Amino acid sequence: MNASRDELKRAAAMRAIEEVEDGMVLGLGTGSTAAFVVEGLARRVAGGLRVVGVPTSERTAAQARQLGIPIATFAEYQTLDLTIDGADEVQLGSLDLIKGLGGALLREKIVAAASRRLAIVVDQEKLVERLGEHTPVPVEVTQFGWQATSAALAKLGCLPERRYVPGEQPYVTDGGNYILDCRFGPLANSRETERSIAMTVGAVESGLFVGRTTMVVVASAAGVEVLTPPALGKQ
Amino acid sequence: MNASRDELKRAAAMRAIEEVEDGMVLGLGTGSTAAFVVEGLARRVAGGLRVVGVPTSERTAAQARQLGIPIATFAEYQTLDLTIDGADEVQLGSLDLIKGLGGALLREKIVAAASRRLAIVVDQEKLVERLGEHTPVPVEVTQFGWQATSAALAKLGCLPERRYVPGEQPYVTDGGNYILDCRFGPLANSRETERSIAMTVGAVESGLFVGRTTMVVVASAAGVEVLTPPALGKQ
Repeated sequence: MNASRDELKRAAAMRAIEEVEDGMVLGLGTGSTAAFVVEGLARRVAGGLRVVGVPTSERTAAQARQLGIPIATFAEYQTLDLTIDGADEVQLGSLDLIKGLGGALLREKIVAAASRRLAIVVDQEKLVERLGEHTPVPVEVTQFGWQATSAALAKLGCLPERRYVPGEQPYVTDGGNYILDCRFGPLANSRETERSIAMTVGAVESGLFVGRTTMVVVASAAGVEVLTPPALGKQ
Repeated sequence: MNASRDELKRAAAMRAIEEVEDGMVLGLGTGSTAAFVVEGLARRVAGGLRVVGVPTSERTAAQARQLGIPIATFAEYQTLDLTIDGADEVQLGSLDLIKGLGGALLREKIVAAASRRLAIVVDQEKLVERLGEHTPVPVEVTQFGWQATSAALAKLGCLPERRYVPGEQPYVTDGGNYILDCRFGPLANSRETERSIAMTVGAVESGLFVGRTTMVVVASAAGVEVLTPPALGKQ
């Protein structure tokens, strides 16, 4: 079961990698799906493809280095051609996303925002009618005043819970912040929710990615399917 | 000249402190003007006033402790009654603010956002017709991807410059972030600019405080004047 799911994810990752062209600067996501992308990309690099990757985490950076993919930072490139990453929920139709259950949401969002295109690789069970159906919206918040920020977020209509690591310590991001997992339930208007969270003082960034996706590759038992948003580029 | 200016600031601080009532939880600002506020407050506390202060910086916390003002954190109080702080620019009429030239903008904004009322103490030369006339808008940004964030902010119509400390090192905030001083010139619509910056991925918080001020105490050679916004509470 898991082996075959991994094969499907790998196939979906390879489909996304078909979008990569020689000379591109690529955002490299974080997580189990993104790891398949880096793996597949490394095979193409070994075959002669010239690309540079901007990783969204130390984990991805280490994997890319080990597999021989040249990596860079925003000091060298402020605009990327394409980012390939995973997601926790994908809304059918709009292809808006919830990301960040893995904790790298801020770097993933900065990399996505700097990219001309964002390709997402998921398995079928991540597709939902409405974002928030299954997962909370992760919100990265500053440690200072996180209790007041949590109270302000609750007023937007959610139940915020501070994320912990299994050892009972609060989870701290790469940026030194906390994560509040905000359970909204199905979102009526994810763009408005993203904006309200952005306007909340103390909230650094949310895991809502609205209007950013240019392509979703879905792995299912039936094979690999490609989705594109109806009004591409609409902001 | 400076001595008399300090006397004026001290008089203005004392006027703001008249707003403090027994039992209040107070936000304590940071900077030279805020230091006069803490000093004056300490005298009232010595005289029997019971208050608790939530400081916006280590510097203010140390001053409050030394002068015998009980201090607390957001762990104990998520809502504050009143914050008294300084500002770098105050727009006549709306009383919207630019703050953060001192570098504590994020904590100051979190404390202000958690406060029912925000009293600002300034000297007359901080009053402007339009925010941005004299000072840039400080924006706290994550270190990761700051170059891409700077490029995104520039698209809003400003010239962002990373802040340095005199020793040529980039300035790093209490939260571990950089400050980009964004020179917009006079702002046509500071609420819209605040929103656009908030929606910029990688921007943690801006030094624009729009619709938050409930009172400004102005020190001038002519004395101390109190300003209140025309449509108090309008958001």
